[in-house]
Amino acid sequence: MSQPFIHDDFMLQSQAAKELYHHFAKDEPILDFHNHLPPAEISADRSFDNLYDIWLAGDHYKWRGMRANGIPENRITGDAPPRDKFDAWAETVPHTLRNALYHWTHLELSRYFGFDGLFSPKTADEVWETGNAKLATPDYSCRGLLKMSKVRALCTTDDPTHSLEHHLAIANDPTIDCRVYPTFRPDPALRVDDADHFNAYADKLAEVSGGDCETFSGFLDAIRSRHDFFHSVGGRLSDHGLHHVFDADCSENEAMAIFNQVRQGRSADAGQTERFGAFLMLFFGELNAEKNWTMQLHIGAERNNSQRLFESLGRDVGCDSMADVNHAGAVRRFLNTLDQRDHLPKVMLYNLNPKDNYALSAMLGNFLEAKPGDPPCRLQLGTAWWFMDTKEGMEWQINTFSNTSLLSRFNGMLTDSRSFLSFTRHEYFRRILCNVIGTDVENGEIPRDMEMVGDMVRRICFRNPAEFFGLELP
Amino acid sequence: MSQPFIHDDFMLQSQAAKELYHHFAKDEPILDFHNHLPPAEISADRSFDNLYDIWLAGDHYKWRGMRANGIPENRITGDAPPRDKFDAWAETVPHTLRNALYHWTHLELSRYFGFDGLFSPKTADEVWETGNAKLATPDYSCRGLLKMSKVRALCTTDDPTHSLEHHLAIANDPTIDCRVYPTFRPDPALRVDDADHFNAYADKLAEVSGGDCETFSGFLDAIRSRHDFFHSVGGRLSDHGLHHVFDADCSENEAMAIFNQVRQGRSADAGQTERFGAFLMLFFGELNAEKNWTMQLHIGAERNNSQRLFESLGRDVGCDSMADVNHAGAVRRFLNTLDQRDHLPKVMLYNLNPKDNYALSAMLGNFLEAKPGDPPCRLQLGTAWWFMDTKEGMEWQINTFSNTSLLSRFNGMLTDSRSFLSFTRHEYFRRILCNVIGTDVENGEIPRDMEMVGDMVRRICFRNPAEFFGLELP
Amino acid sequence: MSQPFIHDDFMLQSQAAKELYHHFAKDEPILDFHNHLPPAEISADRSFDNLYDIWLAGDHYKWRGMRANGIPENRITGDAPPRDKFDAWAETVPHTLRNALYHWTHLELSRYFGFDGLFSPKTADEVWETGNAKLATPDYSCRGLLKMSKVRALCTTDDPTHSLEHHLAIANDPTIDCRVYPTFRPDPALRVDDADHFNAYADKLAEVSGGDCETFSGFLDAIRSRHDFFHSVGGRLSDHGLHHVFDADCSENEAMAIFNQVRQGRSADAGQTERFGAFLMLFFGELNAEKNWTMQLHIGAERNNSQRLFESLGRDVGCDSMADVNHAGAVRRFLNTLDQRDHLPKVMLYNLNPKDNYALSAMLGNFLEAKPGDPPCRLQLGTAWWFMDTKEGMEWQINTFSNTSLLSRFNGMLTDSRSFLSFTRHEYFRRILCNVIGTDVENGEIPRDMEMVGDMVRRICFRNPAEFFGLELP
Repeated sequence: MSQPFIHDDFMLQSQAAKELYHHFAKDEPILDFHNHLPPAEISADRSFDNLYDIWLAGDHYKWRGMRANGIPENRITGDAPPRDKFDAWAETVPHTLRNALYHWTHLELSRYFGFDGLFSPKTADEVWETGNAKLATPDYSCRGLLKMSKVRALCTTDDPTHSLEHHLAIANDPTIDCRVYPTFRPDPALRVDDADHFNAYADKLAEVSGGDCETFSGFLDAIRSRHDFFHSVGGRLSDHGLHHVFDADCSENEAMAIFNQVRQGRSADAGQTERFGAFLMLFFGELNAEKNWTMQLHIGAERNNSQRLFESLGRDVGCDSMADVNHAGAVRRFLNTLDQRDHLPKVMLYNLNPKDNYALSAMLGNFLEAKPGDPPCRLQLGTAWWFMDTKEGMEWQINTFSNTSLLSRFNGMLTDSRSFLSFTRHEYFRRILCNVIGTDVENGEIPRDMEMVGDMVRRICFRNPAEFFGLELP
Repeated sequence: MSQPFIHDDFMLQSQAAKELYHHFAKDEPILDFHNHLPPAEISADRSFDNLYDIWLAGDHYKWRGMRANGIPENRITGDAPPRDKFDAWAETVPHTLRNALYHWTHLELSRYFGFDGLFSPKTADEVWETGNAKLATPDYSCRGLLKMSKVRALCTTDDPTHSLEHHLAIANDPTIDCRVYPTFRPDPALRVDDADHFNAYADKLAEVSGGDCETFSGFLDAIRSRHDFFHSVGGRLSDHGLHHVFDADCSENEAMAIFNQVRQGRSADAGQTERFGAFLMLFFGELNAEKNWTMQLHIGAERNNSQRLFESLGRDVGCDSMADVNHAGAVRRFLNTLDQRDHLPKVMLYNLNPKDNYALSAMLGNFLEAKPGDPPCRLQLGTAWWFMDTKEGMEWQINTFSNTSLLSRFNGMLTDSRSFLSFTRHEYFRRILCNVIGTDVENGEIPRDMEMVGDMVRRICFRNPAEFFGLELP
Repeated sequence: MSQPFIHDDFMLQSQAAKELYHHFAKDEPILDFHNHLPPAEISADRSFDNLYDIWLAGDHYKWRGMRANGIPENRITGDAPPRDKFDAWAETVPHTLRNALYHWTHLELSRYFGFDGLFSPKTADEVWETGNAKLATPDYSCRGLLKMSKVRALCTTDDPTHSLEHHLAIANDPTIDCRVYPTFRPDPALRVDDADHFNAYADKLAEVSGGDCETFSGFLDAIRSRHDFFHSVGGRLSDHGLHHVFDADCSENEAMAIFNQVRQGRSADAGQTERFGAFLMLFFGELNAEKNWTMQLHIGAERNNSQRLFESLGRDVGCDSMADVNHAGAVRRFLNTLDQRDHLPKVMLYNLNPKDNYALSAMLGNFLEAKPGDPPCRLQLGTAWWFMDTKEGMEWQINTFSNTSLLSRFNGMLTDSRSFLSFTRHEYFRRILCNVIGTDVENGEIPRDMEMVGDMVRRICFRNPAEFFGLELP
């Protein structure tokens, strides 16, 4: 090969794409408004012992790839030594051709570790040694990596019962350039189908909020007070992971009765769980609207499908996949109800099953009547998520957004990741975005007015989300 | 830019595409067999005061785009002055890059008004002035625009209770070259869920038909007599807008009982509405089959999603989107029942949610056993509709049709529009069609036998529908 | 045309695609692990009288195409003379441009009969005469065609009650190079909704197995003994054609009660049929797991939609199409239940409705925890099936597989065909596969390391399935 696999024009297949990327996209900073990074590690400025720790230990995408390659579980999540697990990954990577893992792997190795070869058992030694050497230097701590990645601000994902002590510590530390905000993710408050789990959660909520969660109104007050607290720490987004948007009517009295029953130890049945969820999601929506927050909905995941892996390893280990649900009616009911109450917040809806992209994005477009001070496109389809975080998935999401909304107003990429090496996903997204748009320029489908087109690119990369969410930026 | 955005070879990305478009597609006349143009305006040969009147006042696609751009409703559908609304659209257009609105806008401005620049606030003055000047000339009346657009015939969409006075006036006016036919759209006859609405409608039907709608048989006779009347005026198509194809069995006695109940003022419940609809749609199908008409089914729209916009502005204002429904079983039942009764008419099925293209087109292919005198492909998937009336949506529809049926037998494009400026959508479709087919020629996927391939293009543009529907053409 | 339509580089649109196809794909033998070829004809080494017999008499794809072209049924499946039906097909083919039928037709005529022109009424005489002349030579018997097609082994589809006499005869005939294995397809054992049909089947099963099918345990034993017998003849796959994966719990006692009821002449209702099916599919899964077989699931077909064609012509005549079903939950339950019983076999899941590709492939990926001796990717999405066996459908399947699994581990193509001329479908698939991968190489999305990439191609063409299924190969 005359040039490395990851070269300056990787994924940029036309002159216009190259121009857009290099002049308008590449140098924009990152606002990673949704991820699962651990604030404690940022606060403590954790360093990593080796490539396994930083690159494989928590990455269920890679685990899934290794399982598909027939690697025994022992070498994936089991007690094999780190280097052996790293070698299992090296054996797998050459078989990931055409999977996003191949691109992510080589982007991460190139950008963070300067490795420009092809990762495989043949190059595993070299990568292990040079990578680990770099990790031992101060630049490769959590904060170093955030700096290296030009992350201006990021939003972690946090339970309402969390003290946010690390966010507060980071905010008070003048040596950290990057802002780290919490996101309010109250999913456990919906789980009335499991009385033990719910009651433990309600008790914790009472304790943290200093409120009383014996009554339903006390429970709602406690949630509200945590929402207030998150706001005071700079949070401006909530997040909700739902198999489907709850599709039921539920009065406050009904919700209270279900609450009381569960607090007395009797788990809710399926219908009660659906109704209680519907009530509470509207309540969360109203809280968000009141404070001009954005409500993120991640819908369509079917989780923990393999009971075996769930029981042996727990959640988020690579045995989740896509639900197939007919969402349109429920989403309509949810948004319309909030709109009728004059409490429809800004919404980012992330959809997992690509067959639903069009119906969902078109549904969001029904509720865009602008109110003073609102940003354009105040409800929008979020970037391609999880299984769709691939070239194909991103192109589909970009095309759906373009055709059913205004791409120019899109808030763009986020990592949704647990890894400090994943900010290259922003680069990957930007290259694909510029390639899609550049192809249109070359084909004469959009005018070759590079200032106009480049401005759109630049806004999607950073400025749109910087204006949309109202997060305070350094 | 060395050439205007809309140039001779716009959207034609290969030599073969250009040859197909310029030699076979461009000069074919237009048979616009489904639209929502007002026959009264054709009959009266209405002129338009300004670009707002002709271009924005009735176009919910543009309204939706403006809402997404954060334009306040006052400047979209409210009481802002026409020029201010026009400016709101000018502000929005640069943000519609990659949306079909960008192409439609520039095609319309170029073809009808000779404007070859890029529409934006910078050019809004020029467009407003030159456009309005042209609108003041006789060539820009409704009839002038039809002539300019080479429309040979068109089919409007009409309620069975309508007198068709304008169609009759047009038919009797020797100065009108274009034939204007009515389409029989009896959707209100299905609305037994609203007794007041239904009864007003039945009364009107009785009045117009001179029949008796107190009994169910009288009601059916009245519908039949209007169908006869539409036939006498040259109509050869019905049209039905359905969230989903009704999926129920319903005997005539059951339908009668529901009818009687509603006539007595008690609205039908959901199950009754479904059964009554199933009965009546089969009745419409039989009427169509008897007169060799084509039955158009528009399925999969979820309408009036925003109660706020519906209550303030009414229907068709840009708050409709796609349902997600599992259609296959119901469509099968409907078509098979008509086929078992030996009364399966020609069918054009328009599908809104792209995930359903394949299942629906394949389902139509099950019922193609030819009867003497039938055209080829007597049931077929209609062209990409509404939200799918985009390059991507049309390519998907063309590919689905190609793979599950015979593209060569496709009836092609229609505007489905309320605007006299929308005939450029035929040009847009033809360019995309030629581009798709031309790409195949260049890639060697179809033979470079331009007479054979060009003949297919030409037939899709005009000759197939001219033969299929049996409309009398000048 | 300077070169024939089917030329060396047909479908290969880049230099990399050509290199991959010609160096790595073209010469690989064929392992056709799922088809519907009649073993009796292989055993008897049948010859064909004319092109109608071998090419049209049994091909419902072509029938469907002819119906879409308006050909009367008499010239398709009726009593018109063979040459007239052949002419009807010749009239239709020029109208199949952009349908896979156009490619299949010309590939078959080119590869088997050396005809390099375009098939149409103009060339029908030539093709009929030269084709029939070739069919009269010994090379064009069934076995001759298998040899010509380089088929190393193939798996037919067989009822458990079949004696497999032809498979045994073939296995004992040293003059046959190709291995012919049976596939265990027990669909009739699920049909408790039709007591007469089921009881006749159970009686036949008792007779063939020498067992007792009066009791449920005897019935299960009889099935198991036939599974053993198929194994002894070399079978290593089962196959199941399901509208949807049964989604119910059913204990052995419940299944027994349903069985007893049906044996007493009372057909099962819908719920019972669902539960019985769920029980039996798990039983089949366990049999497969015990013998390290692969379970093939063909899901999502809606069959015999036109009652008219079904009653006049029977099954498999071209009036089947795609169901639209939400599959994910049922597939999860099925796989997880088998996994919990430690009896999850290897699975090939073939999906008919393309909207479900992603959810289904992602679901399979949840259950890939490797056990010793397992091949990589032991559950996988099978190649594009039936209506999706097109360039578009194959590209979608390849992309879905690539993004949700490891393409490198894909078992590749099979014909699923009833025709001895259909092995060109492997060529078609290989060209499309190489074109997809070659495009990625040209675009820099996979490295230009042709040995690595070519090895993947070669394995998908033959070596992966040769290793995966454990079939004995010559």
